Amino acid sequence: MSHERAPGGARAVVLLSGGLDSATVLAIARSRGFDCYALSVDYGQRHRAELDAAVRVAGALGAARHVIADVDLSRFGGSALTDTSIAVPEGADAGAPASASSNPSIPITYVPARNTIMLSIALGWAEVLQADDIFFGANAVDYSGYPDCRPGYVQAFERMANLATKSAVEGRPMRINAPIIDLSKAQIIREGARLGVDFSLTVSCYQADAAGRACGRCDSCRIRREGFAAAGLPDSTRYQTG
Amino acid sequence: MSHERAPGGARAVVLLSGGLDSATVLAIARSRGFDCYALSVDYGQRHRAELDAAVRVAGALGAARHVIADVDLSRFGGSALTDTSIAVPEGADAGAPASASSNPSIPITYVPARNTIMLSIALGWAEVLQADDIFFGANAVDYSGYPDCRPGYVQAFERMANLATKSAVEGRPMRINAPIIDLSKAQIIREGARLGVDFSLTVSCYQADAAGRACGRCDSCRIRREGFAAAGLPDSTRYQTG
Repeated sequence: MSHERAPGGARAVVLLSGGLDSATVLAIARSRGFDCYALSVDYGQRHRAELDAAVRVAGALGAARHVIADVDLSRFGGSALTDTSIAVPEGADAGAPASASSNPSIPITYVPARNTIMLSIALGWAEVLQADDIFFGANAVDYSGYPDCRPGYVQAFERMANLATKSAVEGRPMRINAPIIDLSKAQIIREGARLGVDFSLTVSCYQADAAGRACGRCDSCRIRREGFAAAGLPDSTRYQTG
Repeated sequence: MSHERAPGGARAVVLLSGGLDSATVLAIARSRGFDCYALSVDYGQRHRAELDAAVRVAGALGAARHVIADVDLSRFGGSALTDTSIAVPEGADAGAPASASSNPSIPITYVPARNTIMLSIALGWAEVLQADDIFFGANAVDYSGYPDCRPGYVQAFERMANLATKSAVEGRPMRINAPIIDLSKAQIIREGARLGVDFSLTVSCYQADAAGRACGRCDSCRIRREGFAAAGLPDSTRYQTG
């Protein structure tokens, strides 16, 4: 990917989940010359091992600062990732509808408005930091069931953001960068590897154990394993078994 | 205001700060026939008395449920409402710029991306509730310095929301209702009074005491007092002095 380098000292807020995708996005933002302010959002998710991973990744990739913001979505319910009464699907059940009224193309692990909430918090921090760029690991290829991972959504968020903030009123438009939105998992892994991301630090699993080791069975584990295979790179994921 | 009534059992999420404006908006949503799910966001604001007021208002106006969601913006700093190192402006200083680089038309009490964050959380809850309406007390008249209180912003948020959610993908568009956006403070007070809002339950003051009594001196108190005068209605606000 060729891309103009940021002017010296330019800041970017980078949403960092602790997973493989957002670690690669942080590496991309660093490679473009940004001072990176990593933001993780603790939205009451079950897989808290991801947040520990985010701390490791922010350190390893040289983020200027890393903040974990708390937003408790679990009191609203409605997702397998925040509602402990809903089982995380495994194997053949992965991506199955939650109920007859659900859209079968949208995984039960969808968290209502999650990306919108995370981008909104990033927007607030970016304004305080006088950062003109937000980086975000949306991906439309492997997670096509999530509506808020599509290019049209990202563009609409950017348009809204540029009507929302003091910075925009002052003539400093905000860019929402989604540099891996059109890449396959294999392409993301190759790009991250090229930029020196240590994927063993990252956690993608929906039900990782306290040490951050992956279950190897959930939807996210399956996509990740297939990605390494397709990229022709060794899978450095730490699994619970093996 | 004439407006079509909601179909029986239709739900709406109503952002409720505990101030006069959002109490009136809740009364408007109730008058249109919605089952109202009141949402307050605790974004680390100093004026916690507002949240206590929100609890009283939700009860008095018959909200079906009231949730207070926590989002701690104070770690980002940048506003007199969340950063305790910045003084709340009073009297002649109210609305003065925070520094030479600030836009003088934007009050220092502006919280970065606050409305975007609150609407995003409302969007998540609305999706879980299968509510198709969000009500929100933005007002472009008295607070013209806040970019995220203008009609163009509200429209852009709605457009983004309809690309963001599972509900929208399923063909249930979300409406972002801002019924007082074009009203003066006096008009809001008259409308609220007509709908039976007890304004003595509400707190608008940026530095109310623990009992919810207003300082009478800050920008928000001044606008509120002038509103009652212009509406020709007695000011039921509880002040610290008098």
